[in-house]
Formats: sequence, C-alpha cells, structure tokens
Amino acid sequence: MKKYVYSFGGGTADGDGKMKDILGGKGAGLAEMSRAGVPVPPGFTIACQVSNLYFEAGNRVPEEINGQMYKALGMLEGRMGQKLGDPGNPLLVSVRSGAKFSMPGMMDTILNLGLNDETALSLAGKGGDRFACDCYRRFIQMFGSVVLEIEKNEFERLIEARKKKARARLDTDLDASDWLAVIAGYKQLVKKKTGRDFPQDARRQLEMARDAVFRSWNNDRAIHYRRMNKIPDDLGTAVNVQAMVFGNLGETSATGVGFTRNPATGERVFYGEFLVNAQGEDVVAGIRTPRPIAELETVMPEVYQQLREITAMLEKHYRDVQDFEFTVQENKLYMLQTRNGKRTGPAAVRIAVDMVREGLINKKDAVLRVDPSQLDQLLHPTLDVKSLKSLARLGRGLPASPGAAVGRIVFTAEDAVEQSANGPVILVRKETVPDDIHGMEVSKGILTSRGGMTSHAAVVARGMGTPCVAGAEMMQVDERGRSLSVSADGRKVTLKEGDWLSIDGGTGDIYSGQAATREADPTSGYLAGFMGWADEFRGSFGVRANADIPRDAKAARKFGAEGIGLCRTEHMFFGEDRLPHVQAMILSDNEKDRRKALARLLPMQRADFAGLFKAMDGFPVVIRTLDPPLHEFVPKREELMVDLAKLPGADAAARKEMAARYRMKAADLKKRLPELLKRVEQLHEFNPMLGHRGCRLGITYPEITEMQARAIFEAAVQVAGKGVKVIPEVMIPLVGGVQELEHQKAIVKRVAEEVLAKAGMKNLHYMIGTMIEIPRAALTADQVAKEAEFFSFGTNDLTQTTMGLSRDDYTKFSKDYEQKKIFKADPFAVLDQEGVGKLVKMAVELGRRSRPDLEVGICGEHGGEPSSVEFCFRAGMNYVSCSPYRVPIARLAAAQAAISGDKTEAMRTA
Amino acid sequence: MKKYVYSFGGGTADGDGKMKDILGGKGAGLAEMSRAGVPVPPGFTIACQVSNLYFEAGNRVPEEINGQMYKALGMLEGRMGQKLGDPGNPLLVSVRSGAKFSMPGMMDTILNLGLNDETALSLAGKGGDRFACDCYRRFIQMFGSVVLEIEKNEFERLIEARKKKARARLDTDLDASDWLAVIAGYKQLVKKKTGRDFPQDARRQLEMARDAVFRSWNNDRAIHYRRMNKIPDDLGTAVNVQAMVFGNLGETSATGVGFTRNPATGERVFYGEFLVNAQGEDVVAGIRTPRPIAELETVMPEVYQQLREITAMLEKHYRDVQDFEFTVQENKLYMLQTRNGKRTGPAAVRIAVDMVREGLINKKDAVLRVDPSQLDQLLHPTLDVKSLKSLARLGRGLPASPGAAVGRIVFTAEDAVEQSANGPVILVRKETVPDDIHGMEVSKGILTSRGGMTSHAAVVARGMGTPCVAGAEMMQVDERGRSLSVSADGRKVTLKEGDWLSIDGGTGDIYSGQAATREADPTSGYLAGFMGWADEFRGSFGVRANADIPRDAKAARKFGAEGIGLCRTEHMFFGEDRLPHVQAMILSDNEKDRRKALARLLPMQRADFAGLFKAMDGFPVVIRTLDPPLHEFVPKREELMVDLAKLPGADAAARKEMAARYRMKAADLKKRLPELLKRVEQLHEFNPMLGHRGCRLGITYPEITEMQARAIFEAAVQVAGKGVKVIPEVMIPLVGGVQELEHQKAIVKRVAEEVLAKAGMKNLHYMIGTMIEIPRAALTADQVAKEAEFFSFGTNDLTQTTMGLSRDDYTKFSKDYEQKKIFKADPFAVLDQEGVGKLVKMAVELGRRSRPDLEVGICGEHGGEPSSVEFCFRAGMNYVSCSPYRVPIARLAAAQAAISGDKTEAMRTA
Repeated sequence: MKKYVYSFGGGTADGDGKMKDILGGKGAGLAEMSRAGVPVPPGFTIACQVSNLYFEAGNRVPEEINGQMYKALGMLEGRMGQKLGDPGNPLLVSVRSGAKFSMPGMMDTILNLGLNDETALSLAGKGGDRFACDCYRRFIQMFGSVVLEIEKNEFERLIEARKKKARARLDTDLDASDWLAVIAGYKQLVKKKTGRDFPQDARRQLEMARDAVFRSWNNDRAIHYRRMNKIPDDLGTAVNVQAMVFGNLGETSATGVGFTRNPATGERVFYGEFLVNAQGEDVVAGIRTPRPIAELETVMPEVYQQLREITAMLEKHYRDVQDFEFTVQENKLYMLQTRNGKRTGPAAVRIAVDMVREGLINKKDAVLRVDPSQLDQLLHPTLDVKSLKSLARLGRGLPASPGAAVGRIVFTAEDAVEQSANGPVILVRKETVPDDIHGMEVSKGILTSRGGMTSHAAVVARGMGTPCVAGAEMMQVDERGRSLSVSADGRKVTLKEGDWLSIDGGTGDIYSGQAATREADPTSGYLAGFMGWADEFRGSFGVRANADIPRDAKAARKFGAEGIGLCRTEHMFFGEDRLPHVQAMILSDNEKDRRKALARLLPMQRADFAGLFKAMDGFPVVIRTLDPPLHEFVPKREELMVDLAKLPGADAAARKEMAARYRMKAADLKKRLPELLKRVEQLHEFNPMLGHRGCRLGITYPEITEMQARAIFEAAVQVAGKGVKVIPEVMIPLVGGVQELEHQKAIVKRVAEEVLAKAGMKNLHYMIGTMIEIPRAALTADQVAKEAEFFSFGTNDLTQTTMGLSRDDYTKFSKDYEQKKIFKADPFAVLDQEGVGKLVKMAVELGRRSRPDLEVGICGEHGGEPSSVEFCFRAGMNYVSCSPYRVPIARLAAAQAAISGDKTEAMRTA
Repeated sequence: MKKYVYSFGGGTADGDGKMKDILGGKGAGLAEMSRAGVPVPPGFTIACQVSNLYFEAGNRVPEEINGQMYKALGMLEGRMGQKLGDPGNPLLVSVRSGAKFSMPGMMDTILNLGLNDETALSLAGKGGDRFACDCYRRFIQMFGSVVLEIEKNEFERLIEARKKKARARLDTDLDASDWLAVIAGYKQLVKKKTGRDFPQDARRQLEMARDAVFRSWNNDRAIHYRRMNKIPDDLGTAVNVQAMVFGNLGETSATGVGFTRNPATGERVFYGEFLVNAQGEDVVAGIRTPRPIAELETVMPEVYQQLREITAMLEKHYRDVQDFEFTVQENKLYMLQTRNGKRTGPAAVRIAVDMVREGLINKKDAVLRVDPSQLDQLLHPTLDVKSLKSLARLGRGLPASPGAAVGRIVFTAEDAVEQSANGPVILVRKETVPDDIHGMEVSKGILTSRGGMTSHAAVVARGMGTPCVAGAEMMQVDERGRSLSVSADGRKVTLKEGDWLSIDGGTGDIYSGQAATREADPTSGYLAGFMGWADEFRGSFGVRANADIPRDAKAARKFGAEGIGLCRTEHMFFGEDRLPHVQAMILSDNEKDRRKALARLLPMQRADFAGLFKAMDGFPVVIRTLDPPLHEFVPKREELMVDLAKLPGADAAARKEMAARYRMKAADLKKRLPELLKRVEQLHEFNPMLGHRGCRLGITYPEITEMQARAIFEAAVQVAGKGVKVIPEVMIPLVGGVQELEHQKAIVKRVAEEVLAKAGMKNLHYMIGTMIEIPRAALTADQVAKEAEFFSFGTNDLTQTTMGLSRDDYTKFSKDYEQKKIFKADPFAVLDQEGVGKLVKMAVELGRRSRPDLEVGICGEHGGEPSSVEFCFRAGMNYVSCSPYRVPIARLAAAQAAISGDKTEAMRTA
C-alpha cells in the first residue's frame, strides 16, 4: 500500500525537504530539520493527497490510512515515552495544516490536543494547576472554534465575565479556580451549541481535528486565496501532528526567538530574545520584557551553545539568514521553526555581499537575494524613529515618493518660493498642477489631500526625488485660508502656515512637528559592490531615467542611468520667465502671433536641451514634444468664474490682489477678465486626458513642433561642437495611428535636416519615434513602426486608456477595489500584465514585424517597479526608464529578470 | 505586337465594358455604348499600361505605340470625314484621362484640341467668328494650364482686363474682336512663360496633351488620393481621344442633360432639360433658362424620338436609372455620357421596387441598390425648400439627429417645459446635460453650440428621434441672458427667446424664421415592401433598438426592431419626481440612508421596466445598470462656486431665484450651499469618462445594483403574470475584467432567484451579461465570457478609450484631423475598423472560445451606421442595436451585408 503518513524526529525522518508536493511546505521543513539532526519535537505528517481522498470518500479518511496514522502515532508515543490519552503520562500534540504553498492565516491550528478531564490532572502534576487549567481551556477554545465551529467570541465572552467577577484586569490575574470555572463554562457552551459533550477520547479528538484541517482547505477564505494566487484546487493540504513542548515548566524551561544575523543592519551577530519559564506568546505579547539572547549563555550555557551550533548549521544549510523559534523544556532544547529571515534593505544588501565573501553563496544568488524595492531604503533620507516619539502622528496618506522631509508648511507655490529662502518648507496642496512646479522644486517635501500614486504631485515628486505623501484624504486643506486640519484620535488638529511638519514619503506617515532625519549614503561600499554584480548579469538590457532638467539628469547618471528615457518638454514651459510667452502663444488667435511668442521661447528651450545633452554625454536623450493640453498653462476656469462673480463687489485691496494674480492692471479687470474667461472656456475640456493634447496639438499648431525640433537640433549642434557626443531621440506623444506620426515626423525631419545641413553635421545620428500610450497605437503597431524608429511605452496613459480608468479619479474608489480584491494591486503602481501587458506584448511583436531592429523601451512609472521591469524584460524591450532615484531598483530588477531569463523565455514561447 | 490603342465609334468598338483594366472606366464605358449602337462621338483609347511604359521609358511613349495611335487617328479621321490640323476641314478632339477607378477631379481634360491659327478660321466658317474665337481661346487656356503648366489665373487676368476695357460684365458681352485680342494676349503669355510659341502643329498638340495626362497620374493630388483610397500606384491611367461635337452651331444644334426617371421621386417619367444652340456648360451655368426636355419633342421630333429610344435602351442595358448628357450637332444626336443616376432616398426605394416589378432586376439587386443611409430621408420630416427662400440662413452645425424642426427659441429645459404648452419650441443650449432631459423631451428640436456627433444632445436626440443640430460653433449662446448671436454674411444677428427658428438635423442647417415642413410617411407602400425584401435576405442577423422609455420602445417596434439592445436606466433617474430621491441617495453618507432613498425609487423603476417589457412582448430587453458618474445628478460645481461667490452681494430677488434653483429656503442658502459644494467637490472628477461610473458605482454601492435588479425582476414577474412574454437581459456596464462582473452578477443573480422563487416563476429565462466598452475587457474577453452570458459592444466608449479620444472634446480639433486626412471619417460616426474593430474582432473570438453560444451585439451609435453594421455582421455578431429611427437603415445594411456574405466570409478567414 502507498505511504501516506511520514514520521519525523530523533535525528531522522521518512521524508525530506524536497518533498513539498507530498508533505506540504511545513512538513517538508520539519523532515529536513529532523534529518539534519536538529532537535525538533517529533511527530508525523499526513500527506496532502489524503485531503483529496478525504473529500472523494465523502468526508472520511479511508481506513487503511487511519491505520498508517496510528502506526505513526505509536512511533511518536515511543519516542516521547508518553501515550495519547494516557491519564498517567499523556502525550499532547499540536495539529497544523501545511499546504505546498504557504497560505498564511487561511487554515487553522490546534494546540494541546490530548487533554481531557483526566490528562489535565496529570499535567497539573507536572506544571501546576494553573498551568494545566490554562492549557486545557486553550485547547477547548481552539478545538471548539476550529473543529466544532463555535464562534470564537462566545468563548471570549465567558472569560470576560469571569474577569469581571474576579475583578481581574488581565488574563494572568486569574487563578486556577477561576480557570476551572471558565473550563466548566466552556464545556457547557460546547454542549449547548453541539448537543454533545466535549469529546474526552483523545484519539477521537485527533481524528476530528485532522478532518477539520482537511475541511479548512475548502473554506471560502482558502478558495478565494487560491484563486487570487492561482494555486490549483487539487493540491490539498497536509496535516502535521507534532508533540507539544512547554517552555513554561519552571526555571529550567524557556522560550525565545532570534536571527542568525542582525535583520536591521545585516551585521553578522547572533540576535534575539528569550524568556525563562514562558510560552512563545509571552515573548511577543509585551507583558514581560524579554532578555537579550546573549544572556542565555549565562542562564543555560549548554543550551546556548547548542542553539548557536544548530542555528549556524541551519544558516549554512539554507544558505540564508535564519529567523528561528525555540523552546527549552526542562533543559532540553527544541527548535520549533526556522525560516529565511525578513530583513531591511540595507541588511539585505550587506548580508548578500557578506555571504558571497564567506563563500556561502555566489554572486548570482546574491543578486537574486535582495528584493529590488528594498533598495529604496538605501537611497533616501529617513525619519529618525527616536525623534518621532515626541511628535503627534496626524495620519497616513499614500507613499508617493520616498524619503523623509521636514519643513515649515506653505500652501502655495509662490509662498514656497518666498519662504524657502528662510528655511526648509513643505508644500501642502489639495492637488498640485503643472503651474506649481517652481514651488515644488524649492520644497523639501510635498503633501496633497487628493490624487493617487500617479497624480501630478506624485509623478513630479518622484522625478525630482522629492519626498511626497499624496491623497491624504483625511486631511482638509484650505489653501486660501492657509490652514490644514485633520481629525486625529478623535480630536481635530489644525495647522497653519509656518508650522513644522514631518512626512515620510516611503510610508505615507504625516507628523505634526519637527522630526530629525538620517541621511542615506547611496554610494556606500556594500551597495556599490552589489550593484556592480547586478550590472554584470543585466547585460545589454538598459536602464534610463526620466529627467527634465540638467540637475535631475546629473542625479540620474550618479544612480547609474544609461541615458534619458523621457524628457518632458512642458516642464520647461512653466518657468517663471517662460509662462508669459507660453500664455501669449496660447491666447493668440493666429499663427503669426503664435510664431512670435514661440520665437521668444526657442532660445530658452535650446539652452535646456543643451544642458541635458551635456549631462548625458555619450548616452541617448529621448525628448518628447509638447504633451499636456493647453489649458494647463492658463488660469483655472472655475477660479476665473468665481473671481468674475466677485468682481462687482470687490474692494480696492481685493481688486489689487486679483490684478496681481492675473498680471493685469486693476482697471482692466472688468474688460479683460471676461475675455480671458472666454478663451479659457474655449480651451475647457470634459476629459482632458482624452482631449486636445500630445501630437494633436502639434497637428493643429505645427509651429510648436517646429520650434521644439529647432531647439533640439540647434542645441545638439551647439553641444556636439564642443566635443560632447549627442544622441537625440525625438518622441511624438499620444499617437493613435501612423498618420499622426507621419505628419509630425515630416516636420521634425525637415527642421533637423535643415539645421544639421546648415551646421555641416549631416552625420549626427538621431531617431524619431513615438510613445505607445493609446491602445489603438498598440493595435496598429505594425503600421506605426513603418514610421517610428523607436517605441517607448507610456504605460501611465496606456493603463488609463486600456482600463478606462483615470489615475486621478481612481483614488475615489481604490479602497473598494483593493479591499474587494477586484484589483490585486494599484494598476498605476504595478503594471497590469494580463490586460495592459497583453497590449504591450502585441505592440512589441507587431512593431518588430515591420521593423526588426525597432528600439523598444518603457517610460511610464512602471519602469521602476520590479515586477513590471521583469515583465518588460520578458516582453523583449531594450530598456526601461524611471525616476532617477529608482534607477538602482530597476537595474537590480533587470538583473534578476536576466538571471531567470531561461525560465521566463520558456514561458514566453508557451 | 501587343494592342495598346482601341478605337470606338460608328456602332462598333475594339474593346468593351468589361475591359476596365485596360481601357479605364471611361474608355470601357465609351466602348460599351458604341458597341450597343449608341451614337457617341468616335475616338480611341490609349491603354492604361502605356502610362507605365511612358514612365519606364523616361517620360516618352515608345515609337510603336505612337504608330498604333496614329493608325487609330486615321480611322477616326475617316469616320468623321475630317483631318486633324487640316485647315480646310479640321478634326477637333478632346483628350481626357480615365483610370480603372474613378478619381474625380484628380487629373485634367483638354477640349478643342486641333485648333490653331488656321483651323480656327475654318471653324469660323462653320459657326461664326465669335464661336471660333471662343473655342480657340478656351483651348489655349486649357492646354496652357494642363500641358504647359501656366497658372490658370494668369489667363483669367487677361480676360478680366479685356472686360474692363470693353466695359463688359459677362464673358458673353465680349465680341469677336475682344476675343481676338484675348487670344493674342494668351499667345504672348505662353511665349513669355515657356519661351516658345504656342504649338501650331495639331499632332504635336495631341502628343503633348497625351503625355501631360500621363504625367498627371503622378501629381501630388493624385498620389495622395490613391493612398487615401488604397488604389495601387501601378494601375496607370488611360487616355481617351474623342471627336469634338458642338451644340452651339445654330438652331439645328442643341445640348441637354436628363434622367430616365425622376431622380427626386423615382417616378417613371423622362426627366431633363435642354437648350438650343448652346454648349453643355450653358445648361448648368444658369445664364439662359433651360427648357423642359418634353419640349424637345416639338423642337426636334426625330432627335427626341431617338433620344428616348437610346436612353431606354441604356437603362435596360445597365439595369439602372441613367443620368445622361447629349449634344445635337446640326440635327445629329451624340450621347456624350451616361452613368447610373444619383437619386434621393425616396426615389432610390421606388426605382428599386419598380424595376423588380418591371422584371429589370431581381429582389437581391433591389436590396443592394439602395444606400442604407438614404433611408433616413424617408423617416423624418424635412424642411420645405420653397419656404426657406424667405428665411435668413444663420449657418451650419453638425447634422446630429435628422429631421426638420421649427419652433420658438427657449434657452433652458424649464422654459422648454413651460413654453411648449403654447406651441412648438426649439431648445438652444451651449451643451445639454442629463438634467435637461425633461426639456429635451418636449422640444421639437435641439440646437447646441458645443459638442460633437455623439455629444449628450446628439445621442439623446437621436434616441428620441428629435431633430438636432449640434456643435454650431459659430453661434454664441448666452443662456442666462436668453439670447443667441451669430455673425452671418458679415453682420451679427441676435435672436431672443420666443423668436422663430428652423433647423434641419439632416444637414445641420440653421435658419432664422418659421419654415414649412413636410411630413414623411415611414409606412409608405414602397418602403414597406422594400424592407420586407431586405428582411428576407437579412436572415437571423438581428436588429434591435436603443430605447429607454415605453414611447421609444413602441416607435422602435414600428420601425421593425426585434427587441431592445440598450435601455439606459439612468434616464429614469432624471424624471422630475425622481431626481430629489436620487440626490438624497447621493448626498447621504451612509448605506442606511441610501437604501431609504433607493426604496422610494424602486416602485418607479419597476413601473418603467414593466412598460418596456409590455411594449417588447416576446422580444428581449437589455437593461443596463446605472452608468453615469453620480455628479451628473447634482448641481454643477462651477455654478455652485459662482453662486456662492455672488451670495454675499445678492439682493432678495437674486436669493429667491437661487433658492428655487437649489430647492432650498433662501434663509438656508448661506449654510447649505457650502455643504452642498463640499459634497459636489468630493464627487468632482478630472476625467469623468474614466471615473467612478458604470459597475464601479455598483461595486462601491451594491445597494444600487440590488434595487435595480429588484425593479427588473419584480416588473418581469408582474408583466409575465399578465401573459406577456418577458426576456430580460441584465447588462453590467464598464467592466474591465471578470472580477467586476463576478461581483455584480452575484448580486443580480441573488435578487433574481429570490424574486422569481417568491413568485413561483423559476423558469423565466433571463441572462446576465456585460458591455464591452473598455479595451481591457476586450483583451481579456475569454475570462469575461466565463461569467458573461452575452456581450454588447459599447463602441462609443470603446472608441473613446481605444483611441484615447473624448468624443465631447474631439470637436476642438476634428476639423484639423479631417482636413489633414489624419482620420478618414469621424470615428464616433463610422466605426474605426482598423483599430477599434480589431479589438472587437478579438473580443468576439476570445469570448466564443470560452462560451461558444455567447450572444454578441453592439449598442453603440455605430449600430445604425451602414458600413459599421456590415462590419458587425462580418465580425460574427448576432445583432446590432441603434436608435429607433435608424432601425430600417440597420435592417437594410444588415441585409446587404448578408447578401455579400460569401465574399466577406472569405475576407474574414483571410
């Protein structure tokens, strides 16, 4: 007959660590430890397949398997010198589920099984009445809820009633007689709910518990979890039955947890805590203060020595830091669990590098060992935790751009510019608009009450490397009144301009007051070496940065960017010295006047591009022609309407303020405000995201594209003349079909040829390509690629259009969608591979069909998100481009994708 | 040697009508007529291939082909008894291009070739000096511009100068001596521009003209036209050389045009006009008034008889109404052209039906003969043309919903309701919003200054069958001031409330004043019979209507709809009696209050659905759950902001007006307006099209879906109980992935089962499906179809998202896009088959892969556009759904698609 039950313990095991299919993850781990000579409480594992047999047989376990189980139980009893249900020397066991893939919290656990009215007495003899009673009531409670399906809080209620009666505050204030009363109450409850007495037969308890674990495989939570995580339903779960051990049997017993290295710093020191005469829960419950693990050496020198040896061995065995739990029962050490330890970003890097040096792992392992998103912690300043204790936490928004920022509050971009001269400022807005750029540039941090992870504030802040917390919706911002208020802990806190504020863009936390910060060192020895290894494996897959100004471009180079993947030229339009010309262009109603205004912008744009080319010497620079709708550059429609409504009743001061805002004379307001509103009304759009923007502007106003092309190529000529290697890639945005690209390309090409010919630089290599950010462009990519020399996926907008989802409005219902599991993740943070990704793959394939050497990249926010970077690699792109501060993350993610390339290559062809 | 030149004339021809590849369209037609014994001026055709040979040989015609041409010329000279260039009896010819596919206006024509200083004298002997001079100067002008590439207006300028000198107003006021002077001037011009004399050698003229026609194949216009129309570049153009005939050689000559049947009504009467002693141009130029063709019988009885016989024969030959041109030269009849005649919609139907009765064509031909969009003219009232003469035309907007409407102007929905009691009104708005529905319902017509063919006004008006002109951007609408102004013909016209206005929704024309209208008869005998034939061929491919209220549903049935393909439930939310409850629901901040408001809406929705089910007895009714974002149901944000700004300075009357608008007490305004604004601000969206709407609402507020499901199934039970056959199909909008559908379907199903079980009607058949209107749903259609029992393509939104193009904002640059040929047509009117269509086909295929019997339809505006209907048929859909008034159009388009199914089936598998 087939083997269904696998014993372990005593330095041996029927199974091993590789048998996860049969034993489940936990069972395989226990077998592995046992084989390795680690002292684990012995026990046995009932194979996963049995849960299928259980369901097939109509919720019963076939008799022969029962036989195997009792045989294994006999062996366990032998090992422990105890017998299940023996009133004199009872064996107690835990019963736990354990599927092949971890399904945390989905299925249940029962401890202290084997207790009944008699065996409890025997336990009392060993550990005292109070101990025995506590074990027994815990068992009834777990068994009652998991196996007998009685509501947990029905049990809790009985304890609460007893505590009230005994005038006890904590559970620990109850004595043995109290617990006896509770147990009596529990038993009555079981009788009332199930119509039967609580089962006293220990074997029956075991069978019932085992079957309940099997049934838990098909509870709603578990089914839903499997569907979400694509775990097949027919894997089934194993059941692990393991002897109980107790750390609370007096001064020779103890319990503790630890790490083989410091999980915060990565330093190679033994790290952990323990408590004498305590249970595992006590260490984490915070009632007693645990002692540093080093002290165990004094308290139990032999045990300590053994623990050091075992954990060192486990670290070597698993070739990774171990996070372990142990219990000492009457001077005997038992390892309850070991697993690879979670660690901070800095620790992850240090441990990986150290382990290579120690010969424990190779470079490839090291590169795979660090979660790319953890690098973030190494690249930004952080709030000093100690200093936070004295501050009031106001709440949490979205962690939109990482890093800590501390400064005085300002509510407008103008104030930011003014106040930043006197010290650090944090710009607080309902939402930011392109107009706010100059204020955002001088602020240490940005906080908004609206907008999502890819709102204007978030995108711009990430690009600048400025910390940002966005969409802090619990916050009321009154920009005109210069105040913000939050209801925190039931009371309303109001902050005014000039008050100190501290934000953590990595967590979204907001504090009132001035916290201390700790600077990060992005060029630390560990990180530098580690990134070098990553780049070795990354190969030809490139990482560029999105950067609009030379300052960002230089930062990007420092972080390892190999070019600029996206320069948004509109950034340059918002400068104080430029906006008036931009507005003049927009407000003029004929081409001649527009050309006049553009002529004034030309030298400024040329200088901008020259700066970028210089910073990127030898690397390509992708420059996108004007993208946002023109109304973003003029005053807001609603503001104008309100001001116009107020004008008749406004006094001299109010008029003066208004006039200054609109750069008009106060006397002209009456005439000019309605004119301005009329033009603004003409520009008003119902859905600006889908409106008159991108190449659509360049098609209506070819003179804009012409000016930009001239600025690009005149800058290229100028800089190349100084010996800098310039590689311009001109990118046309929002193309939906080849006709649009054709139209714009013709303009750019004509200007380029003209400028280069004039300069005698006909050989300067440049490309003209397009963003793929509209489904139609992806669907017709074969046509588009006939004209496009490169594609760059604008996955922000492609996500918006493919999902019909405005990133700015998504925050309205994102909570519903993420709580109800409609979306697995925010699709603006993590690329939706199933939908958007399908279009991306289609476009790459169609594009290369027309133009085999088509350069393909991504410049959406996803270009810095690890799972999305891996996707881009698999989709056959040439590079990703992201915010400068995410470049190392993308480099690492790309390296990992390249390493697992063989496997994923097979997936791609599947 | 291969034959390259084909003669025709004298009742015979080398080629025939099928040889379009070789002879081009015109040449093949001339050969066919000649063979059929029709007296056409004789001539010859140089084959299309020669133009390729011409280019290959470096812009020369190979010598042997020249030989063939002169041989054919010799034959022509023989037939005419004249010789090219013979001063005594000169042959004059026309030289015209003629490619396989008609390329109207792309290439040029030269008349009177063969004239020179000598032959002109001979012509003078025949027709007088003035005649000869006129012919000669016309020839120099055409030859000069087409062959010698001299600007046309350089010639015009010389005539103008002469007219000034002669104090003549019209060309006809000039006498022979004037024309001689003009000719002299022309010749000087040619010498000046080309450096040579005007060619006097007639054979050289012929060769030069022929080569110029060949070259015109490659002019920019022609190349562009071919690219747009996907005509291969290597087809080349033929050249037709044909003897000139003159209708202006005295009283025995004449010229005329005609139709074999009345092209306006279809009546079988000989129809046309002629002029004695005139040229073709004179008939159309309007200088002399042509005479009805019946009078030709008296003037030239024999010619008339011959013309009747020939045209009757041609109609029979081509089996279609002929539109012909003829010339009588000295009592001899020549047919210059015949082609299938353009006709109005009513005429098309009548002719097709008559011709079947006459045995000329079969039913299938008849069904293919009528352009489906022409049916529109039969289905709506029209403006009476005569009555327009006394009115001022104000301009033209977009023809958004066909039909004529005449009424007094109102500027608000409220005024419309009030004034419509006193007589017909036209609602004039900048744009309409859902709030305006009650005003739109009572108006005879709707006129807006903003928005496109699928703006709210347009969509709703089409659904109601109400004439609408949208996006009349030259018009300034001042809704508060109750006036509209237009600058027409340089002067400003201002109309006020109560002024009469006439609009034609079929053309977009707007007239100030009260026009007369003519009612259409949609159930006329001809149309009814014709549609019957169409339905025979249409087979199982269904046509449904989009209808929200029983009135529209009944209209839809009258027009032949086989069910409702889209009922928009939100329509019902805007009713005067409902809006307060809807607003109460939206403004409440907890589920309990929302449920209270919904409970009040339930009986109203139930009654609505019951009405629809009754009207559609036996046919399916697709009901879409709530779709628009909630802010559409509350006051506009900007209006609130403006009112709030005005409030402090408002006098009692203004406060009263404001209070009435917001349904508040005047005293409460100060407190409640800011509260209202706050909630409206929360609902405000940046891109409402991509915002919190569709199933996203139902997921956030499941109680809304629940109420709607309850209303649907309670109505179904109620109506089914009365013996009506009810087939509800519940449609979930804006689904992007299967998870959303799963969530909403569970609610609908639970309520349905509950209601049906309670009523003991468990067998009532219903379906739950989804709209496919977001690219992601199409891309993951295999997943979606696992839950969806039907798909309905919402191609309005699918076009918006796939193209990243807001239909409301597209009007801002639609002119640029259509003029610059970026788009071939408005993608909201004609489905973009290349992009959006690709997604549609993909979704149908993926959907059927999961669910082979998936019902698939379309409910976007495209469902009533003929080429899109054909596409839907080819894509394998089960039905289309459109506005009730477009149902016959869709039925016909579907029939035509079905008839050409064999061919298109092959395309589908290609």
